[in-house]
Amino acid sequence: MTKYILSDRSFRDEFLKQIQKIDSNYQFVLEDDLTNSEDWQNVEITIGWKKSWDEKLLYEKTPLKWVQSISAGVDYLPLDQFRNYNIKLTNSSGVHAQAIADHLLAILFMQNRGFFSAIENQRHAKWEMADNYMNPQDLRILIVGTGKIGQRLASYLNFFENQPIGINTNGRTMEDFKNTFPLHQLEEQATMSDVVINILPLTDDTYHLYNKEFFQNMKDSATFINVGRGPSVDTQALHQALQNNEIAFAAIDVFEQEPLPADHPLWSLKNILITPHISGFTPHFQKKFMAIFFDNFTKFIKEGSLTENEVSLASGY
Amino acid sequence: MTKYILSDRSFRDEFLKQIQKIDSNYQFVLEDDLTNSEDWQNVEITIGWKKSWDEKLLYEKTPLKWVQSISAGVDYLPLDQFRNYNIKLTNSSGVHAQAIADHLLAILFMQNRGFFSAIENQRHAKWEMADNYMNPQDLRILIVGTGKIGQRLASYLNFFENQPIGINTNGRTMEDFKNTFPLHQLEEQATMSDVVINILPLTDDTYHLYNKEFFQNMKDSATFINVGRGPSVDTQALHQALQNNEIAFAAIDVFEQEPLPADHPLWSLKNILITPHISGFTPHFQKKFMAIFFDNFTKFIKEGSLTENEVSLASGY
Repeated sequence: MTKYILSDRSFRDEFLKQIQKIDSNYQFVLEDDLTNSEDWQNVEITIGWKKSWDEKLLYEKTPLKWVQSISAGVDYLPLDQFRNYNIKLTNSSGVHAQAIADHLLAILFMQNRGFFSAIENQRHAKWEMADNYMNPQDLRILIVGTGKIGQRLASYLNFFENQPIGINTNGRTMEDFKNTFPLHQLEEQATMSDVVINILPLTDDTYHLYNKEFFQNMKDSATFINVGRGPSVDTQALHQALQNNEIAFAAIDVFEQEPLPADHPLWSLKNILITPHISGFTPHFQKKFMAIFFDNFTKFIKEGSLTENEVSLASGY
Repeated sequence: MTKYILSDRSFRDEFLKQIQKIDSNYQFVLEDDLTNSEDWQNVEITIGWKKSWDEKLLYEKTPLKWVQSISAGVDYLPLDQFRNYNIKLTNSSGVHAQAIADHLLAILFMQNRGFFSAIENQRHAKWEMADNYMNPQDLRILIVGTGKIGQRLASYLNFFENQPIGINTNGRTMEDFKNTFPLHQLEEQATMSDVVINILPLTDDTYHLYNKEFFQNMKDSATFINVGRGPSVDTQALHQALQNNEIAFAAIDVFEQEPLPADHPLWSLKNILITPHISGFTPHFQKKFMAIFFDNFTKFIKEGSLTENEVSLASGY
């Protein structure tokens, strides 16, 4: 009996052939291929997830055994139900690391080289130099989240002779970081930093972690960057901090509400770079993603277990 | 008798003390310190140059022996007269290498990560992804000029797994470059490249090197960057190429006329980044510049010769 791997998006033929090659009992399908309700009973694996699949695949004794998430963050998935019905979950942590680290480096270098003011001046045909330029090594950079993205960024910064400070759950030491501190020391470390970069997953502990008090404690010359999850930031507090120049600049890629509504007050600020949740857009995504999927798929059919990126359904990351 | 080192700008006390320490016969002065015409006859060295000094220091049997330029490019200096009156010239090549390489990296990463369209969309409160994202290694980058700036950029690109192509006078091989070609093969190489970066000095050979035909031969998806000298580019041809989408984008830091006049048509184009000749702005400039000056000064007083960055007054670089 053919089992289905249901995907929320298409992949190139070469990857579908590879699935067949690994185990011809499995077939890659899209939702449109499942024409009757019995077909759903053959779905053992999904790639990605859609809200509408909740009712079709989440029930006592579901055939679904494993969900391979497209993203690194899994906060938007029905984790409790996965746990209840004994469905394994793997994320795609690592696939996006280079893309997001590249995005972050672009922001840091733009800022060091006076690009934000040059771009603003260009709108007004104004020829005017910024008043300070910096080397990467002149900045105290705080990377909040030392997973694969944070590690990749840290390795970049090391090349440019900067040793960042890291924050993670328990303060465990990490290569390429000058120091690491536990999450409860975030505010203390942020107070001393020129750049604070959030890359944390969204959990109960990180919801509105960056609030009014946090921004007030930051240096008024500092920059706040969010490429983690939107709800980790109290958006209203961020707006206020930028408007009152409690911090100098923000570069925000993820928002509590996406798309950010056209009439949102953040759009009208001068001291923010708004990007539309693009930091993780990954060139050669299919290839990188499928490398993780195939490793897991091979292990899954042989041993029923998963090798890479299994998510703890208790902690949510 | 005290000899003068006349500078076109002030430096911090620590550096003036260092001069005294190396040779107390020399004194650092600014133009305002030279109160009578006899004082000018003690000027043996200058740091930088002003047009008004031509008539005061350039004549048969001038006491002036050595000019230490503040910049790497020396095209704006009276080279023929320096040669006639046997005045040595050193430039500050290398001082600006990191700053300019950082500036170039900012442009490349902004482009790879869709920042130019994100910034344009932000003006209109528009949430819209760009349609392609790239890794540095996906680009064929042509670096025209393999001096200290080009070498620094090449070493950056190597770290990001990109091996650039280089152009220099005779095509001599250079570390960190995949290939190098002589200047007469520039057009042929540019035709195949995704990014063309000009870092050449301005000489008779490089005046309007980038003209109408050049831009027409480039890929229409390509980017042209100029951090060398403005007059290497035929500005009108560049404007036309951008307006007609013969090339996709330009990032221009140096112009034939600076400041670029407020009514110049380049300002109104969408597919250009205009920066106000800032790529060379160097953090910790005094320290880096004085390192070159002190090496040369020490050699100069001992042996009358110069160690670092002597400019050939025949070739102009």
